[in-house]
Amino acid sequence: MSFAPTELTTSLRKPEKLRYDAESVHGILDEAYVCHVGYATDGVPRVLPTAYCRIGDVVYFHGSTGSRAFLTGRDEGVDVCLTVTIHDGIILSRSWFHHSMNYRCVIAHGRALPVTDEVEKRDALAALVDKLAPGRSNDSRPPTDKELAQTAVLALRLKEVSVKERTGGPGEEPSDLDLPFWAGTLPISSNFGRPVPDEHVKVATPVGLPQPS
Amino acid sequence: MSFAPTELTTSLRKPEKLRYDAESVHGILDEAYVCHVGYATDGVPRVLPTAYCRIGDVVYFHGSTGSRAFLTGRDEGVDVCLTVTIHDGIILSRSWFHHSMNYRCVIAHGRALPVTDEVEKRDALAALVDKLAPGRSNDSRPPTDKELAQTAVLALRLKEVSVKERTGGPGEEPSDLDLPFWAGTLPISSNFGRPVPDEHVKVATPVGLPQPS
Repeated sequence: MSFAPTELTTSLRKPEKLRYDAESVHGILDEAYVCHVGYATDGVPRVLPTAYCRIGDVVYFHGSTGSRAFLTGRDEGVDVCLTVTIHDGIILSRSWFHHSMNYRCVIAHGRALPVTDEVEKRDALAALVDKLAPGRSNDSRPPTDKELAQTAVLALRLKEVSVKERTGGPGEEPSDLDLPFWAGTLPISSNFGRPVPDEHVKVATPVGLPQPS
Repeated sequence: MSFAPTELTTSLRKPEKLRYDAESVHGILDEAYVCHVGYATDGVPRVLPTAYCRIGDVVYFHGSTGSRAFLTGRDEGVDVCLTVTIHDGIILSRSWFHHSMNYRCVIAHGRALPVTDEVEKRDALAALVDKLAPGRSNDSRPPTDKELAQTAVLALRLKEVSVKERTGGPGEEPSDLDLPFWAGTLPISSNFGRPVPDEHVKVATPVGLPQPS
């Protein structure tokens, strides 16, 4: 399955870097932990990092991010651009000009709507918690009605969405290849350290937690 | 030195998470590699990841990001929100409600202006390249006039800027502390792998490159 390109999800420059297949979109969204949500208030742009999760073709994220725009009810939703970036490496070239980054990025446009249905909200929060550590929603206390009411969740249905990525080594000018400079890739990866229990923990560290690499 | 808080850089929720000192702002900007630049075109928000660097209180980033809004001249500049986030950990709590993330984030608002002065542009590009690997601007070929003309650089002066961060372990409800669940922090860090030379490299790997941890 692929998402249909639109004016918002196409590019005049290097369109070959763009893809629209659901597998790529879902893969990046499922691998990363933080999205950057952009929206505009009276024309002033704002970009906030926040946790998110995906269920099917819907991305859920917290609506109480501390910003005025998200604090109020906003029953009508808010137009957002939700961007998730995984930084895979630094590209060192023989020329300043061709220095670059390897990355994989999902950019999704649309109206994020507040989740008002209680079942959908609980499912979204369970998925958010399970994204942080698999199985976690069964291994912690579900929200009280009061906590549920305090938690604003926004839903963005994936529709206008693209994947942009750069892979591989430096793209050099042929005339630069004999220059006496090192060129190549500095791989970057995000890694878990050893889990740090808080001081009140009385149970063993769950075996299912992400492990240090 | 501190930046003065403004309506754009304050929060109604958890204001204790916000700071304005230049040392914190500069430290996060200098540690991370990717910023998310948000802007609005006809009210439609867009968020793009891109490389950046800092010289004093100015952040420089590439203006040719493939988007229509940045492609054209835009002599007058573009209002942006530039956000840089370092994700330090995942917080697992005894309750769904208190699951969270540890992070450090800089959010800067202002008008990004195209850099037209050639000396400033070269200095910015040198700093961009040196951020990717220290000393790199002396260890690669500077841009030709044509390459320089092809490279759009935008400058955002830091003025309306805040640091938002969360550190420490889970914040629990006292009544949850005896629940039979593990709680704590999963530290996350970004690490370099071994440098991968491209197939034409004839020189040794520079000793100054970031090393695998």
